[in-house]
Amino acid sequence: MPRSASAPTTGRDRHSVDAPLTLDEAMAHALDLARRGPAHGPNPQVGCVILAADTADATRTAGTPGATSAGGAEASRPRRVLAVGWHRGAGTPHAEADALARASASGVDVRGATAVVTLEPCNHTGRTGPCAQALLDAGVAEVVVSVGDPNPVASGGMGHLRSHGVAVRTGLLADEGEELLRVWLTSVRAGRPFVTLKTATSLDGCVAAADGSSRWITGPQSRAHAHTVRATVDAILVGTGTLLADDPTLTARPPVPEGEVGDGVPEPAVHQPLRVVVGERAVADDARVRGGDGRFVHLATHDVHEVLARLAALEVRHVLVEGGPTVATAFVTAGVVDEIHSYVAPVLVGDGRRAVGALGGQSIDDAVRWSTSTVERLGEDVLLVARAVRPPP
Amino acid sequence: MPRSASAPTTGRDRHSVDAPLTLDEAMAHALDLARRGPAHGPNPQVGCVILAADTADATRTAGTPGATSAGGAEASRPRRVLAVGWHRGAGTPHAEADALARASASGVDVRGATAVVTLEPCNHTGRTGPCAQALLDAGVAEVVVSVGDPNPVASGGMGHLRSHGVAVRTGLLADEGEELLRVWLTSVRAGRPFVTLKTATSLDGCVAAADGSSRWITGPQSRAHAHTVRATVDAILVGTGTLLADDPTLTARPPVPEGEVGDGVPEPAVHQPLRVVVGERAVADDARVRGGDGRFVHLATHDVHEVLARLAALEVRHVLVEGGPTVATAFVTAGVVDEIHSYVAPVLVGDGRRAVGALGGQSIDDAVRWSTSTVERLGEDVLLVARAVRPPP
Ligand SMILES: NC(=O)c1ccc[n+]([C@@H]2O[C@H](COP(=O)([O-])OP(=O)(O)OC[C@H]3O[C@@H](n4cnc5c(N)ncnc54)[C@H](OP(=O)(O)O)[C@@H]3O)[C@@H](O)[C@H]2O)c1
Ligand SMILES: NC(=O)c1ccc[n+]([C@@H]2O[C@H](COP(=O)([O-])OP(=O)(O)OC[C@H]3O[C@@H](n4cnc5c(N)ncnc54)[C@H](OP(=O)(O)O)[C@@H]3O)[C@@H](O)[C@H]2O)c1
Repeated sequence: MPRSASAPTTGRDRHSVDAPLTLDEAMAHALDLARRGPAHGPNPQVGCVILAADTADATRTAGTPGATSAGGAEASRPRRVLAVGWHRGAGTPHAEADALARASASGVDVRGATAVVTLEPCNHTGRTGPCAQALLDAGVAEVVVSVGDPNPVASGGMGHLRSHGVAVRTGLLADEGEELLRVWLTSVRAGRPFVTLKTATSLDGCVAAADGSSRWITGPQSRAHAHTVRATVDAILVGTGTLLADDPTLTARPPVPEGEVGDGVPEPAVHQPLRVVVGERAVADDARVRGGDGRFVHLATHDVHEVLARLAALEVRHVLVEGGPTVATAFVTAGVVDEIHSYVAPVLVGDGRRAVGALGGQSIDDAVRWSTSTVERLGEDVLLVARAVRPPP
Repeated sequence: MPRSASAPTTGRDRHSVDAPLTLDEAMAHALDLARRGPAHGPNPQVGCVILAADTADATRTAGTPGATSAGGAEASRPRRVLAVGWHRGAGTPHAEADALARASASGVDVRGATAVVTLEPCNHTGRTGPCAQALLDAGVAEVVVSVGDPNPVASGGMGHLRSHGVAVRTGLLADEGEELLRVWLTSVRAGRPFVTLKTATSLDGCVAAADGSSRWITGPQSRAHAHTVRATVDAILVGTGTLLADDPTLTARPPVPEGEVGDGVPEPAVHQPLRVVVGERAVADDARVRGGDGRFVHLATHDVHEVLARLAALEVRHVLVEGGPTVATAFVTAGVVDEIHSYVAPVLVGDGRRAVGALGGQSIDDAVRWSTSTVERLGEDVLLVARAVRPPP
């Protein structure tokens, strides 16, 4: 499933926490905070909760590297929340910096405190300074991490902290942390964008009828869902065949959530992914996909790996491949599809265009198997989300 | 979905009802009783609850023909249950006769009582005598029905009762009654077996790979489910192509429910549907489909309507068409598929055999649309059950 869209921000401080939290609860809350950041963009969603020092026995919070749960009586003792923060996307402060800035702005002393962070603090100076150093400078005594940073450029934060006497433990709620950052982690580990293949098919696997018509196989709820997904990815990709057949706009037009319009609340601006057309044929000057916002690229190649490298260079972490069958087949055959969103409608087309063409296999044992993640009914249709079956990282 | 299988019978009388019931509650209970009967077989599942006369004001229970709910204060006053019954399949007493026999066996007087029956009492002498007359003879004063009998041979029970002074109302919990009897009612109204088309496909709509191999596209949970469905139908049908490709046994081998084996309880006998092969090629003497029980027919024709007429003559009310693509296409094209069971696995086959072939349409507007009834995850797979979209009867 797509990373969740950012929650609308209001003037009210919706993230203040009054009740003391255990380390587990603090990490769960940090994961919730992380989800408020944008799902799209080059940076991961990260949250941070700063807990007061464990005054009852502060010396017992020594680091347990590699611990998968913060077990032990001292770890589960609830502590006061001093500050929280999260990352709002490239060019804005990282979660740790955000939390430290809030603490400082409200005059809260974080010396001796514990920083609970969903991702290993970065150790490099990018658009912002390194977070590991910022935590050190603030006098934080302990850092608890969910997931280590696989990014060779940014990692090393935990080592830096440890070598400066900060107690560091990692792996707290690691499964939830991995799940939240799945798209980003896959992209960083594979060195290419995460690829979601979307198909909208009939029960007999057709994406279009014999004459090429495909509007509409699936129903309005499926289409609304697909628009919501578009608003969470960095790029949408089709081949020149789909361009010429459908002249699509490839914009994200998610339905406005109920109760969030009217009352003078302006409609939230929708993130528009990069629109990508792949293939050697020309893209007409008046093709709708060009749009007016400069967020369009035409990649005149058939090489899937070249396409992904070009997109990675454009800071695309997550590309949604929307078809058609030729391009879908090329991505599946290249072995780069990480996830399939298969919208299936209760329709039989018969002699139509199939979702994918020849994949090189002859027998059923050669078929490409995915692992089902979720099954969701959408009106008359069903959405099956399946993940690539690969050896664990 | 298939009609539910019959509940295992035990020595204990599991259907005794001590609490008084309103008419609505009595009909809901009668529907539950009906479900204990076998889902397969030529006869409908029917239940009957006999309520004591409304002694507070027995004269106010005059019939309200066509009422869809038993409204009014007198109708909802709870009354004592005198007897219950249900139909256990062809050759056994009808639900009303069963209830009357139980009342008589326990010395209960049903004169002046109200019989609550899920289906209009029959008016003909078949393997058993007419139920309308039996209710009259027993002195029942009122009959409340959920669904009228569309069977021209058996209907007329309500008219017979009315003309002999019995108060009759119909349509109580009619939607539930129609739903329970959907397969049987469709079959009687259309004058042919109800047709369920089963497909087991990949996400791209293939039922077999290029070399014809199809074992297994779907997983063990889907296959177990399909065996459970087989045990509820009257016949399973395949074409000679599937016969020659797979040499299937076409027997029902549903998984044994947990906790119902061991402890000396014998495994319940599974209903075995008639095995039907359609096509002109010969069925080999050693084909597994022949079995040893005589429950096999070979229909050497391509005419779908002839197939259905032959099956109707064999008392088949519900046929499960299991393929392959040629036969599936023939049934869809003939317009006789009432329900689709589409098992979809998270697999891409590519260049394989498709679930259906040409259906005669060119554009997406020509596609055959079904209406989704249920969506169910089965392990890695999803089962989408969809019903034919037809004008209401
Ligand atoms: N239901 C759905 O989910 C859905 C989604 C999208 C499209 N569709 C339907 O699909 C149909 C279009 O099918 P399509 O297969 O022609 O569309 P396509 O896959 O979008 O475009 C195919 C074209 O892309 C170029 N291309 C790019 N990468 C390639 C590669 N690796 N290998 C080969 N060619 C590559 C080629 O054109 P060049 O000669 O220009 O290089 C090729 O002809 C339309 O009817 C459309 O409505 C349905
Ligand atoms: N995944 C699944 O759900 C599933 C289910 C079943 C089969 N399969 C696969 O499907 C493949 C077999 O496909 P198939 O299409 O050959 O099987 P089929 O539909 O079972 O059999 C086709 C044959 O049935 C006869 N037939 C009967 N009625 C007909 C009609 N109205 N029109 C034309 N022919 C009629 C014809 O043979 P005659 O010449 O003898 O008349 C025809 O060649 C196998 O690979 C099997 O494994 C998959």
